[in-house]
Amino acid sequence: MVPMNLYLEGRAVDVISTGSWTKKAIKEIKRVGDVSIIASSEESNFSYIPSDFSFNANASYTYITSNNTIAGTQWSDIPTTPTPLVADMSSDIFSREIDINKFGLIFAGAQKNIGPSGVTLVIIRKDLLKRSSENLGTMLNYNTHVDNQSLYNTPPTFGIYMMNLVFEWLEEKGGLNAIERINKEKAKKVYDCIDGNFYISPVEKESRSLMNVVFRIKNNDELEKKFIQEAETAGLSGLKGHRSVGGCRASIYNACPEESITELVTFMKDFEARHR
Amino acid sequence: MVPMNLYLEGRAVDVISTGSWTKKAIKEIKRVGDVSIIASSEESNFSYIPSDFSFNANASYTYITSNNTIAGTQWSDIPTTPTPLVADMSSDIFSREIDINKFGLIFAGAQKNIGPSGVTLVIIRKDLLKRSSENLGTMLNYNTHVDNQSLYNTPPTFGIYMMNLVFEWLEEKGGLNAIERINKEKAKKVYDCIDGNFYISPVEKESRSLMNVVFRIKNNDELEKKFIQEAETAGLSGLKGHRSVGGCRASIYNACPEESITELVTFMKDFEARHR
Repeated sequence: MVPMNLYLEGRAVDVISTGSWTKKAIKEIKRVGDVSIIASSEESNFSYIPSDFSFNANASYTYITSNNTIAGTQWSDIPTTPTPLVADMSSDIFSREIDINKFGLIFAGAQKNIGPSGVTLVIIRKDLLKRSSENLGTMLNYNTHVDNQSLYNTPPTFGIYMMNLVFEWLEEKGGLNAIERINKEKAKKVYDCIDGNFYISPVEKESRSLMNVVFRIKNNDELEKKFIQEAETAGLSGLKGHRSVGGCRASIYNACPEESITELVTFMKDFEARHR
Repeated sequence: MVPMNLYLEGRAVDVISTGSWTKKAIKEIKRVGDVSIIASSEESNFSYIPSDFSFNANASYTYITSNNTIAGTQWSDIPTTPTPLVADMSSDIFSREIDINKFGLIFAGAQKNIGPSGVTLVIIRKDLLKRSSENLGTMLNYNTHVDNQSLYNTPPTFGIYMMNLVFEWLEEKGGLNAIERINKEKAKKVYDCIDGNFYISPVEKESRSLMNVVFRIKNNDELEKKFIQEAETAGLSGLKGHRSVGGCRASIYNACPEESITELVTFMKDFEARHR
């Protein structure tokens, strides 16, 4: 929906390519118009968030994926852009404080930090709404949803109700500031196990995600298999890396409690001691 | 999505116009191509399902809304069409047996007879899939969902899980054949109260919906207001007609038990006795 609504004829979209989600977005933008990839870390399997690029002042907008679940990278600092910044924040929204003024549009599937799958949250800067053509299908035009307060159609009521409960939980925790501190502590504990000898991170230090800790074990497929199996038996599930890249991955979204991190780290240290 | 995927250049869509939902569909088809309204009951406030029309053998497809929630009409017999029949069955799917072979495509929002809002069920005849242009956005192309067994994106898992429970419930009841019999009995009990003197049906007999029983009380707004208020007090809620047409409406989907119908009918008779 983003390119359909925000693309301006003849003004290529600036994209910083950081993984599979950005690549899928590029494919969709190309159906509507042109793309200018101003930086990419694809040459190193998306192991870092690029920092060396310059924006086109004439772009329709600038596009980033703020957190990359498969590569395990995350934008630690959101860039300031000359054109409206559009961010797919599906996997790290509400995990930390952000400066909302930097963004033109944020969209996020609910299923990581917001609530059950089947709801998508969109935040759009009001002045961008006038870009949408009246020829767009009614449901595909952001104005329909803004004008009708997201009630043009029957919305996914259960999901929205659950979102509200999650937001209440988040406020009880102390809000974004508090959850950011907790998430940083959680991630640090896991990354501290990854010293580069036994557990190896394919991700450059400055680009490491607070949500998805991706790691390898001595680049040894067999050992990783054993690790994932034993972890499963110990009650630690979901540690297999995404099927497209293999390896291991600990996804530690807001809902993952600190106790689970303690258990994971204990298990990782024990496994290392037994297989070093 | 239907016109985007199924429209064939230069071949207007045959539409039988039976209410607000069809009118919205016509608006969306017109964004993509031409519409040929081969019959309409708009001149009588959509009080019946037309039976006098002839199909264009060259249409891209034929479009109907099988049940009209606001007008309170329903196609009792699904027509046999020379071009693929596309039906919005949002409000009566799984309420009765249908001959699936008559349809090219069925779509239905879940929130009436299937499960919670936020899921849409689509049944498409395989040969129609080749009509979709590769230029369509990935999520807007039916092939994406067929090729990936509805798992290209993270689907609304909770809604789908609930759908399964509803289907199990439906099978325990005896399936579509059984629910159709129950629905007919339920609707008959309410329509039997509507004799045309006190309670008046704006809908022609042959076109009356088994799902949405629409009625007026002596065409008297004040009396209807009183009826709705007293019903509410008696625990019978939701009897107000759609805001666009006024009057009263009993929506008696699959989930509405026979006991509720008995209570409603008792209340209607009592109210009539007091205000005749």
